[in-house]
Amino acid sequence: MATEEQAFSQSSASQMCRFRLCVAYVGTRYSGWQIQEKPLPPPTIQGELEAILSRVTGKAIRVHGSGRTDAGVHADGQVAHVDIPLERAGLDWQYILNRHLPHDISIVDMQPAPADFHARFDARGKRYIYHLWTNQRYVPPRLFPFVWACGSLDTDAIQCAMKYFLGCHDFASFQTAGTDVEGTVRTVRHLAFTSRATLFSDAALLAIEVEADGFLKQMVRNIVGALVAVGQGKFSPEALPALLEARDRRLLPSATAPAQGLTLHQVFYGGVGS
Amino acid sequence: MATEEQAFSQSSASQMCRFRLCVAYVGTRYSGWQIQEKPLPPPTIQGELEAILSRVTGKAIRVHGSGRTDAGVHADGQVAHVDIPLERAGLDWQYILNRHLPHDISIVDMQPAPADFHARFDARGKRYIYHLWTNQRYVPPRLFPFVWACGSLDTDAIQCAMKYFLGCHDFASFQTAGTDVEGTVRTVRHLAFTSRATLFSDAALLAIEVEADGFLKQMVRNIVGALVAVGQGKFSPEALPALLEARDRRLLPSATAPAQGLTLHQVFYGGVGS
Repeated sequence: MATEEQAFSQSSASQMCRFRLCVAYVGTRYSGWQIQEKPLPPPTIQGELEAILSRVTGKAIRVHGSGRTDAGVHADGQVAHVDIPLERAGLDWQYILNRHLPHDISIVDMQPAPADFHARFDARGKRYIYHLWTNQRYVPPRLFPFVWACGSLDTDAIQCAMKYFLGCHDFASFQTAGTDVEGTVRTVRHLAFTSRATLFSDAALLAIEVEADGFLKQMVRNIVGALVAVGQGKFSPEALPALLEARDRRLLPSATAPAQGLTLHQVFYGGVGS
Repeated sequence: MATEEQAFSQSSASQMCRFRLCVAYVGTRYSGWQIQEKPLPPPTIQGELEAILSRVTGKAIRVHGSGRTDAGVHADGQVAHVDIPLERAGLDWQYILNRHLPHDISIVDMQPAPADFHARFDARGKRYIYHLWTNQRYVPPRLFPFVWACGSLDTDAIQCAMKYFLGCHDFASFQTAGTDVEGTVRTVRHLAFTSRATLFSDAALLAIEVEADGFLKQMVRNIVGALVAVGQGKFSPEALPALLEARDRRLLPSATAPAQGLTLHQVFYGGVGS
């Protein structure tokens, strides 16, 4: 992988023009954002983008995302940057990409960016939205790919539990077990639980919005898994401080929420949202 | 077909219990609501429902919809009735159907109904919603299967044009050419043009709601096609009264709007909506 990255970066010299992309996708049929270097690579968002960019420019083009999204996770506002050879920079790349991309990936916006803009290193935070469907009798087919049909919930208990996640905490208990990262302290800046106005008058569609300065691996899905467990009466909100302090995913009694309910909504950069 | 209907109706005697169903579906991969008696029948909503009902009861079960929807058209609130053999009427049919149906069809509600309830003959009106996406640069992948990406529109012109459709008119110009029905007079009770609040702040998603006491074949799609043509400046709102009076689809200069933007939203019965 390191060699691969170098090969790409050698060609991204001054004869390149950097672009910033806002990408939306329905993640259902993708093995996540990140390209996988395998003999038969599974479909990935990054892979689809790079294939088109490389085909049109005739050069190996690398796309740098703000971060990975897991297999099956969606995005409304993933951000990425890419270097396009200067002689091709004047093309209408948003049009070209949307013309060639499958219908479950779309370039919402694409603009020239400063040469030192970096989608991952410059990100100051992200907001995710997780959608829950709480009516046990049916799931609207239109929403099926985008919700966790978790059944009925005690929303008061969830509201009560959410306050323990707000602010600066060590979230080691809420990352994928066995993950080895340097720091596990993150600041949750916003955590809201809303009932979405939909075609369905019974308000069975709930949304959990989580914004933080950064996220550990599967952190949103582990927070949502714990909140849903609280809403199902599996443990009390008051158990959460001790679970946070334990700093060990194996002590968390709730399951990781499934991928399909999760959407990367927005990535924030230097004061201004993208 | 007449023989087929008789075969079904002979078994729907007093030993049957009638149910009323509210059905939602994503119509993308279906050849419409109505079952097609062919050697290799294409997938239809009615066909999927009847296959499960017949398999579980061991009898040929006919499902009667409030009306057909075309290939590719969606529904949030299609209504149907079905007669279930009395000895099987106590089963949790909503659960059974949703357990066996593909994820793009769902039974939103299913209740016992009076033996003389008829989904088609008792319907007093219907409401459809047609979704338009007006941003030419991209289509959100989540909405792609549910919108007509028609490009930018003069919404003032459309607002102005809508008034000509409201009320009681002969809609012969707005049905599929060559259709032979007895009466072509219908009353449009509600026609609204709204910008839907979405994740997308640019309000590029528009909805046209049409409610009438009944609809001719492809009437909504022909009305929407004409409204979009007006919004694209292809003809003026003031041309519509003459086009209505012409009572001939061949004189209508606009195309029929594509199926994927259309959703059957609600069917009305005897004063109370369903």
